[in-house]
Amino acid sequence: MTIAIIGGTGPQGSGLALRFARAGIPVVIGSRDGERAAQHAHTLRQQLPDDAAALTGTDNLDAAQQADQHVILAVPYSAHAATLDALKPTLTGKILIDIVVPLAKGNPKTVEMPPEGSATEAAQALLGDAIPVVGALHNVSAVTLNALDHAINCDILVCGNDLDAKQSVMTLLSALQVDCYNAGPADNARCIEAITPILIRLNISKAVPFSHAGIRICPPDKP
Amino acid sequence: MTIAIIGGTGPQGSGLALRFARAGIPVVIGSRDGERAAQHAHTLRQQLPDDAAALTGTDNLDAAQQADQHVILAVPYSAHAATLDALKPTLTGKILIDIVVPLAKGNPKTVEMPPEGSATEAAQALLGDAIPVVGALHNVSAVTLNALDHAINCDILVCGNDLDAKQSVMTLLSALQVDCYNAGPADNARCIEAITPILIRLNISKAVPFSHAGIRICPPDKP
Repeated sequence: MTIAIIGGTGPQGSGLALRFARAGIPVVIGSRDGERAAQHAHTLRQQLPDDAAALTGTDNLDAAQQADQHVILAVPYSAHAATLDALKPTLTGKILIDIVVPLAKGNPKTVEMPPEGSATEAAQALLGDAIPVVGALHNVSAVTLNALDHAINCDILVCGNDLDAKQSVMTLLSALQVDCYNAGPADNARCIEAITPILIRLNISKAVPFSHAGIRICPPDKP
Repeated sequence: MTIAIIGGTGPQGSGLALRFARAGIPVVIGSRDGERAAQHAHTLRQQLPDDAAALTGTDNLDAAQQADQHVILAVPYSAHAATLDALKPTLTGKILIDIVVPLAKGNPKTVEMPPEGSATEAAQALLGDAIPVVGALHNVSAVTLNALDHAINCDILVCGNDLDAKQSVMTLLSALQVDCYNAGPADNARCIEAITPILIRLNISKAVPFSHAGIRICPPDKP
């Protein structure tokens, strides 16, 4: 079951490609420049053990077409709408996993939400209800994703209006050894996407003793 | 340095009153009905050790007047604006700590934000810039606060437009043995307040093995 990662040459997409392929899930990364994606996939494969699944690269449209079910959108927000517009014909019968955070231009400590309320809602509006959009993975640092010798340090909040699609995505993400939570409908992406600039703020701040912070859902008795 | 908790007969306010008094900080809880607040304070004191600080009760206005510096607003959202309007003359020179989450009527799994964007921003607009408003404690379950034999299971995200006020609040909250983070300006309350209904959703859901969930900021290497 091959997954596609659109914008897979970026830091977030690369880290996800590495972790999924290492977990045995074939990945095709997409880029506007298919040749660049193929070269980048070749470079990424050097970091993987021999028993990893296939990791290949091609242009975005071809990558989405190769995906059996899951297409992860990991482009910068500035390319969000145009990329979705181009991909739309390839997405019928598939699930779009939107990990994009609408960070403000020049200020990653804040978001500038689209009129729809969030990137996830904008994607759902653009694709129409027949193609389910699931928001996820917004709060995982790219540095964390690429540090393959470390576990992912946070939980994953998953949102969207299609319960079956969310459950399918949570099953997929469990391959990354993370705890996923169904965080409700797509409009909760207004909150979930906005957590990221707060984490970026903490990372930038000298007040915290670490960078690449994540969040975890904690039960009462966990120390 | 006495603090006031407006709406201190509610579950959130009661739990905070108990924990602050136990930590040695004198607390006066306020209610619309001062006699009821006094009786409630008397009942709460039964749960506290002899060396706890004073815990008294009176009407909201008197409570705010008795506060040296910090006034915590812990009323239901339906009473948010009217309470602030009444308190405003008593708040000059003090800091208002707004813990109110604008949960939707009849559906605690979602928020209905005011036109200002969040309760914290609405409070700041209502009080004017001369009285600093700090948003905090939104994501701590009332059950957790009242379970005095347990530590608070989550971190505290603090937001507001006045840095000195935020630092003063973080110092106060450190008495509760929690980690506080400066989560940026007041408009980040749009995210922070909205985390609460997501936690409530997880608590209600049969999919999670616990209730009264909180969130923690996690560094990369924490298991």
